Amino acid sequence: MTTLSDPRTPTPGSAADLPGARLSPLGLRDVVVDDAFWAPRREVVRTRTLPQQEAQMRQPGKQFDALRLTWRPGDPDEPHIFWESDVAKWIEAASCSLAVHPDPDLEASVEEAIALLAGAQQDDGYLNTYFTVVRPGDRFTDLRDAHELYCLGHLIEAAVAHHDATGRTSLLDVVTRYADLVDRTFAPGGPCEGGYDGHQEIELALVKLARATGEPRYLDLCRRMVDARGTRPFYYEAEEARRGTAGYFGEVFPHRVQQAERFREYNQSHLPVREQQEVVGHSVRAMYLLSAVTDLAAEDGDAELLAAARRLWDSTTRTKTYVTGGVGADPSIEGFSAPFDLPDEHGYAETCAAIGLVMWAQRMTNLTRDGEYADVMERALYNGVLSGSSTDGTHYFYGNPLASDGSVHRHEWFGVACCPPNLARLLTSLQHYAYAQGPDELAVHLYVGGRVRTSAGGGATVRVETTYPAGGDVRLTVEPDPGPAGAATPWTLSLRVPAWSARTRLLVDGAPVDLDAVTDRGYARLTRTWRAGTVVELGLDVEPHRVWADTRVAAAAGRVALQRGPIVHCIEGVDHPVPAHSVVLPREAGLTLEPDPLSGLPAVRADGFGDLGEEGGREGDLYRRTPAEVVPVRLRAVPYFSWANRGRSTMRVWIRES
Amino acid sequence: MTTLSDPRTPTPGSAADLPGARLSPLGLRDVVVDDAFWAPRREVVRTRTLPQQEAQMRQPGKQFDALRLTWRPGDPDEPHIFWESDVAKWIEAASCSLAVHPDPDLEASVEEAIALLAGAQQDDGYLNTYFTVVRPGDRFTDLRDAHELYCLGHLIEAAVAHHDATGRTSLLDVVTRYADLVDRTFAPGGPCEGGYDGHQEIELALVKLARATGEPRYLDLCRRMVDARGTRPFYYEAEEARRGTAGYFGEVFPHRVQQAERFREYNQSHLPVREQQEVVGHSVRAMYLLSAVTDLAAEDGDAELLAAARRLWDSTTRTKTYVTGGVGADPSIEGFSAPFDLPDEHGYAETCAAIGLVMWAQRMTNLTRDGEYADVMERALYNGVLSGSSTDGTHYFYGNPLASDGSVHRHEWFGVACCPPNLARLLTSLQHYAYAQGPDELAVHLYVGGRVRTSAGGGATVRVETTYPAGGDVRLTVEPDPGPAGAATPWTLSLRVPAWSARTRLLVDGAPVDLDAVTDRGYARLTRTWRAGTVVELGLDVEPHRVWADTRVAAAAGRVALQRGPIVHCIEGVDHPVPAHSVVLPREAGLTLEPDPLSGLPAVRADGFGDLGEEGGREGDLYRRTPAEVVPVRLRAVPYFSWANRGRSTMRVWIRES
Repeated sequence: MTTLSDPRTPTPGSAADLPGARLSPLGLRDVVVDDAFWAPRREVVRTRTLPQQEAQMRQPGKQFDALRLTWRPGDPDEPHIFWESDVAKWIEAASCSLAVHPDPDLEASVEEAIALLAGAQQDDGYLNTYFTVVRPGDRFTDLRDAHELYCLGHLIEAAVAHHDATGRTSLLDVVTRYADLVDRTFAPGGPCEGGYDGHQEIELALVKLARATGEPRYLDLCRRMVDARGTRPFYYEAEEARRGTAGYFGEVFPHRVQQAERFREYNQSHLPVREQQEVVGHSVRAMYLLSAVTDLAAEDGDAELLAAARRLWDSTTRTKTYVTGGVGADPSIEGFSAPFDLPDEHGYAETCAAIGLVMWAQRMTNLTRDGEYADVMERALYNGVLSGSSTDGTHYFYGNPLASDGSVHRHEWFGVACCPPNLARLLTSLQHYAYAQGPDELAVHLYVGGRVRTSAGGGATVRVETTYPAGGDVRLTVEPDPGPAGAATPWTLSLRVPAWSARTRLLVDGAPVDLDAVTDRGYARLTRTWRAGTVVELGLDVEPHRVWADTRVAAAAGRVALQRGPIVHCIEGVDHPVPAHSVVLPREAGLTLEPDPLSGLPAVRADGFGDLGEEGGREGDLYRRTPAEVVPVRLRAVPYFSWANRGRSTMRVWIRES
Repeated sequence: MTTLSDPRTPTPGSAADLPGARLSPLGLRDVVVDDAFWAPRREVVRTRTLPQQEAQMRQPGKQFDALRLTWRPGDPDEPHIFWESDVAKWIEAASCSLAVHPDPDLEASVEEAIALLAGAQQDDGYLNTYFTVVRPGDRFTDLRDAHELYCLGHLIEAAVAHHDATGRTSLLDVVTRYADLVDRTFAPGGPCEGGYDGHQEIELALVKLARATGEPRYLDLCRRMVDARGTRPFYYEAEEARRGTAGYFGEVFPHRVQQAERFREYNQSHLPVREQQEVVGHSVRAMYLLSAVTDLAAEDGDAELLAAARRLWDSTTRTKTYVTGGVGADPSIEGFSAPFDLPDEHGYAETCAAIGLVMWAQRMTNLTRDGEYADVMERALYNGVLSGSSTDGTHYFYGNPLASDGSVHRHEWFGVACCPPNLARLLTSLQHYAYAQGPDELAVHLYVGGRVRTSAGGGATVRVETTYPAGGDVRLTVEPDPGPAGAATPWTLSLRVPAWSARTRLLVDGAPVDLDAVTDRGYARLTRTWRAGTVVELGLDVEPHRVWADTRVAAAAGRVALQRGPIVHCIEGVDHPVPAHSVVLPREAGLTLEPDPLSGLPAVRADGFGDLGEEGGREGDLYRRTPAEVVPVRLRAVPYFSWANRGRSTMRVWIRES
C-alpha cells in the first residue's frame, strides 16, 4: 500500500471512518510571530541558546570535530553514538530561525555543519561517526541500542527544515542518499529485513521526507518499520544472537536478559503498536513512535492505526501525564510508570518527552480536529516544555520534577544533550504548532499573536492581537485576499476554546455569538464568507483556579495545584518564610494576582499557613510528640516554567491543602 | 598502643574522660528467652529461615558448591565476590541458635559448611573463592571494591559465635590463620601497608577476634585500618594506579572518576573518621565502621574517637534516621542523603543498615550507659529491622520504604543476599542486645522476658515477666546467688525508661519508687544489696500516641505517624475502602485499640476520613476543577514491621492529617 498526499496542499483523510478534513501545520513564514510572551523567548533562543549550543558542540573533540573523522582508537573524546542527532537538532532549530530572521553568521555556521556532515558521509551514503571511526565493521548490527536510525531521523528533520528555510538541498541530498541506503538495507531480502530502530525517530522523519520529496518509498519504509516493531520472533533477540554480544547498553542494563519483557516494553517492541493497550517504556521513544503512527494513520487513512493512537493517547493523558504536561515518571527507564504513579519530587518528566507529547498532540489535533489534543499540547508547551530552559536560555533541565528539596538546578549541558537543542527547535518552529489549515479552514490551536497567512478560502491574512497568556482576550482581524467580485468562498475560522476556560465570550464585529451553538469538539467554528476587516474577539477566562488530581495520584493526595489560563503555578521557598513543603493553602482562601517580573505573567497570591520551622525557635529531636506551630504565610505561586531561576530553593506544584 | 580488656570480664573505660563503668553484653546462654513476642519469632528463624537460607546456598553452583573450588573459566555460576559472607552470616546465626537450642541436623550442616571453608583455605591461610578460582592472581589488589576483608570479617564473627556456642575451634583456627596472613600483608612494610577494605566489617570483627583469643595483634590491625582510612594520599587511588583498571565496580559507577569526592564519601574514606562531621555514604559501611570505632574507643579509652562517634551519632539520629529506625535514604548509593531528606515511598532504608544501627547503638549504650542509644536500638529493632522479614520468615525486604503504591513486596532471595542472614543472626543473638552487665550492674536495654543470669554483685538470676510490647508492664524478680552470710555485695539493676513512655511507674516489692530520683540518663538505677525474691515492677506507658517529624522532613509535612510503645504503625490499603494515601486522620480523633492477630500486637483504630475514589462513582479527567468527595473512613493502623504480609497493598507510615 502506497499513498502519499501532496505535501504542499492538505487533503482530506482517505478512509471513511477517519475524521473529516484533516489539517496541516502552517509554514514557518506563514506566521509572523509578534507576541508579548513568545517573541522575547524566541529571541532568547536565537541570541543566547543557539550560540551557546553551537559553542558546546564546537569544543575540541566534541560534535563538530568528530565529524572530521580524525578520531583514532586510543584518542580522547571517543565520538558518542548519537552526536549527529545533537548537530541535526541544532541545524533544524537554526534553520527555522533563519526562515524568519536572517542572520549571516548563524547561516554560515549551519552551512559549515552541513559541509561537515556531507564530508563524513561514506561513498555508499552511510553517515555515522561512531560506526565509521570507532566500530567501523559494526553498522546496523545493534539496532536496539546504537541509535543509528535515530540519528538519521534527526538529520532528515534537519534537512527538511533547512530546505524549507533556505531552499537549498545541500543537506536534503545527503540524507536522501543515506535514506536510500537504509531503504535498501531494510528492504525485503536485505540484511536488515524486518528491523527497526531501538529509539524511534526515523519513522516520523521518513514521513517528513516523503512529504518533502514526494517520494512514496520513504513512507513505505516508515510503514514497514512501524508494522514490524513488536512482531515475533523479536528482531532484537535474533540480532543479539547473530551479533553475539550484549549490545551498547548491555552494561547499563545488566538485567535485560532476566527482565526481557520489561526491556521489550522499554522501546515499545513488546507488541505491535496496533495491539498495544497501555503506553509503556521510554517516554521519548513512545512519543516519537506515536507521532509517526498518527502521521501514518493520516497518510494511509488507516483507521486501525488511528484507533491504536487514540487508545494510547487515553492511556497517556488520562493516567500517566503530569499536570505540567510532563510524561515519563520513572527515572530508572526515563519512561512511563504504572497508571497514576506520578511522583513529584522523585519523578522524571524529561523535557524531550514533553516536547514529544507536543509533537504527537499536534498531529492528533490536525488529524482529528479535536481540541482535546490541542489542550494537552498547550499544557505541555507552557509548562513542562518551557521549564526545560532557564529564563536566559543557557541552562537546561533534563528531568522536570514537580517538587524539589532545593538541590535541583539546571545544567549548562549534558553528556547526553538531547533536550537543549530539542527545546530550541520546538520554539523556533512554534508557527507549526500554533496554527493549521485545511482547504476551507484556518485553525488557531494556540493563541500566539502576530500576522497569519492562510490559503483557506482562496487566501486571507489574519491579524492576531493578544496579551495571552497574561490576559485572556484575543482579537483577530480577518483580511481576505482581494479577488474577483463574487469569487469569495466561505471558510471556517476555528478558535480553540480551552477546557480550562470556565466562561468564554465570543464576539464578531462586536456582536455576541452563542458559543455553544458554534462550538464543535473544543473549537468555536465560525464559517462565513469573510468581509475584509471583520473583527473576532475571544474572551477566555484566565482567572486563577484550583486543580485537583484523580484520587489515585498519591503524590497529589491532600494537595491542590494552582492554574491560570494554561499556566500551572508552583510555590518556591524563596518567596516564603518556610520551605515549600511547609506551606498550606486553605480551600476557602481567595486567589489574587500580583505582577511577577521574572515570568512576565501574574503570580497568584493567597492567605495561607506554614509550619514554623526550626529557625523559628523550635528545637529538639527528629521525631516528637508535639506538632509544629502553625503561622500565617502569604502564599505566592509563580509560573512553574520559571522556577529555579532565583538560586536553589525548595519548590512544589502540589500544595498542601487544608 | 596496645590495650585489650580481658574478654571474659568487663572492665571500666580506660580514660578519665570516658563515661564510667562500661558494660558488656550478656552471653547467649546467660539469657533464656521466654517471651510472648520474641520466642515465636526466634522459633520461626530456627525452623523456617535458617533451613530456607541453607537451601538457597545449597543450590547447584551457589555458595556451598563454590567453596569446593571446582569452578573453571567458562563455567556457569561464577562465584560471587562476597558469597563467603553469606555462608558466614548463616553459620553465625545457626551457631547462636545452637547455643540455646540443640539441633543435630543444623549442627551437621554448620560443620559441613565449616569443612568446606577449611577445604577452600589456601596453604598460606588465604580464603576467598573468587580470588582463588576466578581471578587467582589478583588478591588484595582491589580493596575498594572486592570485599575480601568484608568476607573475612563475617567469617571471624561466625567463628567467634561458633566457638562460643560449641566450644569448637574448627572455624576459629581457619580465620586466625587467614587473619594472621592479613596482619602480615597489611603490616608496616607489607604489600598492603596503609590499606583498608572498601566495605567496612573487618574492623569490628577484629575486635571480636582479639577479645575471643586475647591476642592484641588483631586489635592493633583494627586500629591501623580505622586510622588509615581517609588519610592522604588516598589508598584507593594509589591502588587503582598500581592496578591499572577501574576495579570490580568500575562499570557500576562509571562516574566515579568525575565524582571522586562523592565516591570517597561512599565508603567513608574521604576523611579520617576522627575528622568526620556528618554521616555520609553507604549506610551499612558507615554503621559497621562506627561500631568498630565505638569498640576501639572503649578498648583504648580513646576520648577523641568516642567524640567522633558521638558527633556522627547525632548526625545520624537527629537528621538522617527514619521514624522506623531505618537509615540510608538514597537508593542510588544505598546510603545517606542530605540531612532531613527522608523520602517515604522513594527512600531506601536497607534492612542491613537498620541492623548496623542496632549493632552500633548497642556498643554506644554499653560504652556510655546512656539510654538515648538504647532508645534508638529499640526503635530500629522493632520496626525497620523486623520489617525485613515476612511473618513466616521466608521472604525478605532489602529496602524498607515508609510508603508503597502497592507494588512493593518481599523476595525469597537476592543476587546480593546480605540482608536475610544478617536478620537471622541478629534475632538468634538477641540476648546480646537485650541485656548487659558490668561488675556491679545488670542493665536491661530491651524488655525481653525470660531468665537472666548475671555475674553482677557476685551473681544473681533475674526472672523477667512481661507481655511487652503488647503491654507495658514488666515484672522482674531478683534472686541473688546464695553466698556466705554477709558477703552479699550491693549492685545496680538498671532499667531503661524509654523516652516514648510519657508516664512510667516503678515499684519495688509493691512500694512506689520516685522515678526521677533514681533515673540517670534514661535508666532507672536501683542500687542495693538484693534480697532474694525482690520484685521490681516497671509500668511503661504504651498508650498509642501521635508522632510528628521535624518540619524539615518534607515527606512528613502535613502528616502524622502513630506509635504505641516502641512500635511504629502504618496503614495498609487492605484495611481501608480507599488507598492508604487517601486516608486522613483528624488531629482531634481519639486512638483506640483492637486485636491484630497477624502481628500479635494491638492495632490502632481512629475515626478518619478518606477521598472517595473512582470506584465510588467519580469519573473524568486526570486533573479537575472539583475536589474529591470526602467520606468517613475507619482508620486501622497495624505495626509497620508486619506490613505487606497480606498481599499487595498500598501502605503509609506518615498519615495525612487534618
